[in-house]
Amino acid sequence: MARERHITLPGGFTAAATCCGIKPSGKSDLAILAGEKPLATAVMTTTNQIVGEPVKFIRQVLPKGFGRTRGMVINSGNSNVCTGRAGLADAKAMATRTAKHLGAEAGDILVASTGVIGHRLPMAKIRSGIDAACEQLDRTQDDAVARAILTTDLRAKSAVVQTRLGGKTVTLSGIAKGSGMIAPSLATMIAVITTDAAVAPRTLHKALREAAGVTFDAVTVDSDTSTSDTVAVFASGEAGNKPVTASQPAFRTFLSGLKEVCGELARAIVADGEGATRVVKIVVTNARSDSEAKLAAKSVADSPLVKTAIHGGDPNWGRIAMALGKSRATVVAEKLSIKLGRQTVFSRGAGRRFDVKAAEAHLGGEEVVITCNLNLGKGTYTAWTCDLSREYIAINADYTT
Amino acid sequence: MARERHITLPGGFTAAATCCGIKPSGKSDLAILAGEKPLATAVMTTTNQIVGEPVKFIRQVLPKGFGRTRGMVINSGNSNVCTGRAGLADAKAMATRTAKHLGAEAGDILVASTGVIGHRLPMAKIRSGIDAACEQLDRTQDDAVARAILTTDLRAKSAVVQTRLGGKTVTLSGIAKGSGMIAPSLATMIAVITTDAAVAPRTLHKALREAAGVTFDAVTVDSDTSTSDTVAVFASGEAGNKPVTASQPAFRTFLSGLKEVCGELARAIVADGEGATRVVKIVVTNARSDSEAKLAAKSVADSPLVKTAIHGGDPNWGRIAMALGKSRATVVAEKLSIKLGRQTVFSRGAGRRFDVKAAEAHLGGEEVVITCNLNLGKGTYTAWTCDLSREYIAINADYTT
Repeated sequence: MARERHITLPGGFTAAATCCGIKPSGKSDLAILAGEKPLATAVMTTTNQIVGEPVKFIRQVLPKGFGRTRGMVINSGNSNVCTGRAGLADAKAMATRTAKHLGAEAGDILVASTGVIGHRLPMAKIRSGIDAACEQLDRTQDDAVARAILTTDLRAKSAVVQTRLGGKTVTLSGIAKGSGMIAPSLATMIAVITTDAAVAPRTLHKALREAAGVTFDAVTVDSDTSTSDTVAVFASGEAGNKPVTASQPAFRTFLSGLKEVCGELARAIVADGEGATRVVKIVVTNARSDSEAKLAAKSVADSPLVKTAIHGGDPNWGRIAMALGKSRATVVAEKLSIKLGRQTVFSRGAGRRFDVKAAEAHLGGEEVVITCNLNLGKGTYTAWTCDLSREYIAINADYTT
Repeated sequence: MARERHITLPGGFTAAATCCGIKPSGKSDLAILAGEKPLATAVMTTTNQIVGEPVKFIRQVLPKGFGRTRGMVINSGNSNVCTGRAGLADAKAMATRTAKHLGAEAGDILVASTGVIGHRLPMAKIRSGIDAACEQLDRTQDDAVARAILTTDLRAKSAVVQTRLGGKTVTLSGIAKGSGMIAPSLATMIAVITTDAAVAPRTLHKALREAAGVTFDAVTVDSDTSTSDTVAVFASGEAGNKPVTASQPAFRTFLSGLKEVCGELARAIVADGEGATRVVKIVVTNARSDSEAKLAAKSVADSPLVKTAIHGGDPNWGRIAMALGKSRATVVAEKLSIKLGRQTVFSRGAGRRFDVKAAEAHLGGEEVVITCNLNLGKGTYTAWTCDLSREYIAINADYTT
């Protein structure tokens, strides 16, 4: 595999990955991202009420969701969820050990863990892994870092965007994991984004919330919201731009770049959804409001009957109408129209004649586009999902505790 | 197959079924239930905003959900949904033709259709079917009637309960269909219940709403709410009991019998869920309220990760905790306890040691019981679902429009 730089491409960051032995497969399972200096940091975590111990730790470190940190330590193969006080102490111990190597304190390091729920972390292995990783922090291991955070994922996911802020080139880069238990609600599984832009923590948090709302929050694999969803963005300021504030036009430029990185990672999560063979884009237009458009789009994206029909290449638009109708968004059959690809299949309360062969060809492609015009207002939202296949069942019936 | 009486067991009813040719398989696909005299009738229909034309017709006939009718005509193989004004006229024509044979009017007959969405009914076939069925109405075809309303169901579903009301023996009997697109919200796919009890229409409606809330509304196969859900109860009064009113103790007796019939039919729907190999009972206790208990129980029942784990025989209680935590019910990890069968696997924020072999044996049985004690109040609810198997995908990826 060609070595690509992404997570350390923005100035001010180093990273490393190791195989410390949590995964029985012997694949890499521990990664560290470090700032050479303190980093403006914003983080969002799961809305599930049962949260992992690392999420609890992050909320202790950054109670408002933003501040300054020196980086993050992440392990895969064990999510350290529902492990009680001992588990929370383990999360803190991971931060403490990482911090020591960086000349920092536990409160300067974020922690994320992903994998099976309900088992204590093998701390001896993790301690050796942290020591090994911290000794080799550099800018050559980005791909290994992206792989070290994976669980049932088949592909590593990264994204890079460059933009201009006040005459300076600014880079935003990110990695993500996630392919099952994906229905993030304001955050996703684990995504780490780095940038060399100068942005104050509070502004960074505002941008993250706005970007996550239309990217990570717009994807669903199986409607199940993880206990460990964490997305963190770190800004080193090395690009030398005048610090971005929320009231400047530069904020929109930065936000646009951040949305692009988050969107690319979110779509990569769906494309690598457990058992997925196709990506499905659901565009809802003219809902009563953006939030109603979101409810409608996500109801279609979460419907197992819509997802199995797409898997079967069947232009069964009745299931799309059903999923819109069961949502909490206002839907009026007589106003609704539905397109599969470019063809209108339903309008004003009844199905329309359409070219079934062309529709089947569209469903057989890599990206399926479903457009639902509610004709009730101006709200829009785009959600992303994947099809539902036998492989999803195989992965999740056999995945063991 | 032994001929059993159920739907015509209460006095005052006849029924018949025919194969009119809607189903390509040549299986029976049209059924009629008729009252010898006007019947007290209560009906509930889907909460989906996109509703089938037969549901629209029912709402025209019984705008308050109760009144007096002479019976019901039901076809399977085509749901007459999203077929516009022409489809609504077809539904009315079914009622008119049936009514004519019974010496009644269109407004005296309920109509239900189930099957694929978006296609016009083959009305010539249906007209012949209605004529043939009406000519052979009797009390010998109950099993054929129960089969004629099926689609992807593997088994016909019926239930009979007898009880005493004011010194008279009263019979309640029901049939139902449904195995996919099952997440009824205050009503289910199609269920028809007959009784010889004397109950006024309004009282019958009150009893039906109460019974459906803890039976049909408590089951889910795939979280998708149909556009055609319809449950109707017809009371002939032939038992000769003093008419039941809502304020009498007799109402509780009647309600208890109705709950029993509805519960048996609802559990039969789940047991025959598409691809199901096991029935799963989810008991939530000590929620803040009954409605929160319901939200929590249904979140577990709808979780594909819980359902695939059960299919795989894996005591992965972390997924149960996840599903409780993502629900809109209040859940506090430190107060929560979870049992699989009789074993506590999680309590007060952390997993407990348990006999994994015994848990696997419980998951391998026909009925899996998950008990979640939220320890926050006195609310309780019991939901029912099935496991999620490759067969569900096969059925729904290949089911054609």
